[in-house]
Amino acid sequence: MPDAIDRRTLLTAASILAAGAAFPMSATAEEQTESNHARAMMAIAPDAPKIAMLVHPKMVALDLIGPMTIFSIMRFNVQLVWKDRTPVSTDVGIHLAPTQTFDECPQELDVLFVPGGLFGTIDCMGDAEVCAFLADRGSRAKWVTSVCTGGLLLAAAGLLKGYDATAHWAVAELLPLMGARHVDKRVVRDRNRMTGGGVTAGIDFGLTLAAELKGEEAARRAQLIVEYAPEPPFANGTPTEAGADRIAQMRKDRKGMDAKAFAAAQAAGKRLGI
Amino acid sequence: MPDAIDRRTLLTAASILAAGAAFPMSATAEEQTESNHARAMMAIAPDAPKIAMLVHPKMVALDLIGPMTIFSIMRFNVQLVWKDRTPVSTDVGIHLAPTQTFDECPQELDVLFVPGGLFGTIDCMGDAEVCAFLADRGSRAKWVTSVCTGGLLLAAAGLLKGYDATAHWAVAELLPLMGARHVDKRVVRDRNRMTGGGVTAGIDFGLTLAAELKGEEAARRAQLIVEYAPEPPFANGTPTEAGADRIAQMRKDRKGMDAKAFAAAQAAGKRLGI
Repeated sequence: MPDAIDRRTLLTAASILAAGAAFPMSATAEEQTESNHARAMMAIAPDAPKIAMLVHPKMVALDLIGPMTIFSIMRFNVQLVWKDRTPVSTDVGIHLAPTQTFDECPQELDVLFVPGGLFGTIDCMGDAEVCAFLADRGSRAKWVTSVCTGGLLLAAAGLLKGYDATAHWAVAELLPLMGARHVDKRVVRDRNRMTGGGVTAGIDFGLTLAAELKGEEAARRAQLIVEYAPEPPFANGTPTEAGADRIAQMRKDRKGMDAKAFAAAQAAGKRLGI
Repeated sequence: MPDAIDRRTLLTAASILAAGAAFPMSATAEEQTESNHARAMMAIAPDAPKIAMLVHPKMVALDLIGPMTIFSIMRFNVQLVWKDRTPVSTDVGIHLAPTQTFDECPQELDVLFVPGGLFGTIDCMGDAEVCAFLADRGSRAKWVTSVCTGGLLLAAAGLLKGYDATAHWAVAELLPLMGARHVDKRVVRDRNRMTGGGVTAGIDFGLTLAAELKGEEAARRAQLIVEYAPEPPFANGTPTEAGADRIAQMRKDRKGMDAKAFAAAQAAGKRLGI
């Protein structure tokens, strides 16, 4: 056993050193990069794409963190925007601190992004200040994007009228109430709109948008860094995979939320004159 | 077009109402669930599995948020543990607030989990307090688990000696320096150890562990909620998919970090008498 490990040790050292690592290393270059956060912030180029990611109370953290991780690796200029700087709650109990208020958010964005958030989304769909902010920045942003139920909020702000789009499977059929055509794909692009399905679709979305902004090779690099070669343990990620019985059970459990989402979509559609 | 939308509206309403939703709904049941956070906290059963997830400065947020989202859907009792309650930095710039200190963390855990974090992991590998905490709780936890470079930290704490394990592809070959056998799979289980590959492997890991703790049907349900039917835009999530040239380039870019990881693994191996 010690022999086996010694051989592995040598192989490991060889594979790392073969890439040109000085060992033992001098720490000088690394001293500057001790903090990933500081490094990420420092490394944003002046011409990096400006990404405004909405955050709001009762949002789904993973909807945001998936694409944010990709954008962060790409060294994009990512800001979390909300009405004020009060940290917002999320589904997993953590709080996220906005980095810019709506007023502070640049007028011209490369990407406007909206995550999902169940009841939080529904609240925002009926919130005139949120919808007005999204409609304004979305009218000029190079890309108008969402993941999960965030697609409903984009639509409620009038940003998906006449566009192909998607959202979390449980609510995607509400998109036409607000003038969008629902396309049942994981990531849907129509002109400068790019919308993703539920929660984990944010990773596919993030890589797809990264390729549009910085080219396929850069996006491939990000994919390798996050080791995105998924192997779901079950085939149960879509209604089709899950089957009718499981969907019926889930619809039953979420009937209150679905009804609220329906009412919010219907109200937004009326406002939009759909 | 209005006709088409009207038909869609009816179909949507029908599909939602078919599941038994009252519409227009009475808000009474939903008033209690206005806050996902509050709901999640309230909904933890007294017998819910106790999950302690390490957080530490310079960690990778997605390593944690992936499985945490699954565990949260499962209504597990999830705590974020660290030396103190000072929010820790992450790769994407957000900060995460620990919910328990090491002292407050229960002695008997169902799951001990360690995320990855590049330089943050390396710091922890040489931190006696962190390693002692992990070694102690890990000696009794029902499951000892990690994602990404977190596998190195588990190993540095002596918890993977004699076990099959994996970690982020860029550092997984260092595991044998600390007595583990590296198995090149996305999620590796050996007795009560379950370790995942880099970053996004946390979702596969989370669902796999959820099935062990609460059964396949419950895990499938969580998979459907997060719509985990991935469609990576490129085949570039593993070194094999990426190819030798891209790996060589990436090794070059990360040589400082890789050398530090190697030194930390070697030092930990010596402490462990490997």
